Amino acid sequence: MELYVERGFEQTTVAEIAQRAGLTARTFFRYFADKREVLFAGSASLQDSLVSALEGAPESASPMQAISAALDAAAAMLGERHDFSRQRQSVIAANAELRERELIKMASLSAALADGLRRRGVTDPDAGLAAEAGVAVLRVAFERWVTATGDRDLLQVMRESLDQLKALTADR
Amino acid sequence: MELYVERGFEQTTVAEIAQRAGLTARTFFRYFADKREVLFAGSASLQDSLVSALEGAPESASPMQAISAALDAAAAMLGERHDFSRQRQSVIAANAELRERELIKMASLSAALADGLRRRGVTDPDAGLAAEAGVAVLRVAFERWVTATGDRDLLQVMRESLDQLKALTADR
Repeated sequence: MELYVERGFEQTTVAEIAQRAGLTARTFFRYFADKREVLFAGSASLQDSLVSALEGAPESASPMQAISAALDAAAAMLGERHDFSRQRQSVIAANAELRERELIKMASLSAALADGLRRRGVTDPDAGLAAEAGVAVLRVAFERWVTATGDRDLLQVMRESLDQLKALTADR
Repeated sequence: MELYVERGFEQTTVAEIAQRAGLTARTFFRYFADKREVLFAGSASLQDSLVSALEGAPESASPMQAISAALDAAAAMLGERHDFSRQRQSVIAANAELRERELIKMASLSAALADGLRRRGVTDPDAGLAAEAGVAVLRVAFERWVTATGDRDLLQVMRESLDQLKALTADR
């Protein structure tokens, strides 16, 4: 990650990443399919955590309360890694291919959350809307938190953003 | 478009598209950079229309009211072309590269709407949240409308979806 920030994603080779991490290139490829995977390796487990949290919400929870539980789980996973997250974000922002890949991961997350809501008995279009709204909050809150200078709590920013979305949609 | 539906996007050549449309391949390339552009040629003007509608909303309009004006403009542009829209959607859904391109267009639309809101004096994170929520409503409403069998009015579906998002976020 440091290398990506120092040199840019395109200019960094797998050999350099492996060397910095004290690995051989061969060991590197045992963990990551390619150098993009260094940035996206956490996406699958993030998605699993969010879906689990959604499924674990009380039966009585409304669709957005279940989404809120998922966002709390995201905050718990990502909130500890402010420096890593900021670096990762800046590397992705600088590269069109990586930005696209991030969009795909977010679309996949939205689809997984919508499916999770459907398994909870939420019908369409509510399931799709609540999932899309949840991912919108996640993205905006994450962006705010990553660019914030002080040590703000991601969980707090996430909940504030959800409240802000509520206030925005109420006023239309 | 018919050819994409009949044969699949990958199997259709520019020569075939041009022939069906009564054009030479050379004329085709005067209108479209490549065969994907047949599907995405409308994206730029759609984005322009939405941003114009947002800018044209009364000064007193709340952020979501301005977004709602943009969604009405989208409904006016897309609502007349139910068959085309359904075919386009099915071609895109069947091809990963096209799905990605659609995601990129939607991200670009969201960024343009957020910029439009900022020019109206809306601060962050509200601008980003309202824009993301607007695009979420657009996607879900469009999907509902495209898959609906009867002749539902896209404008109506769009407004219902926005109300539904309001109800969902209120209950959290």
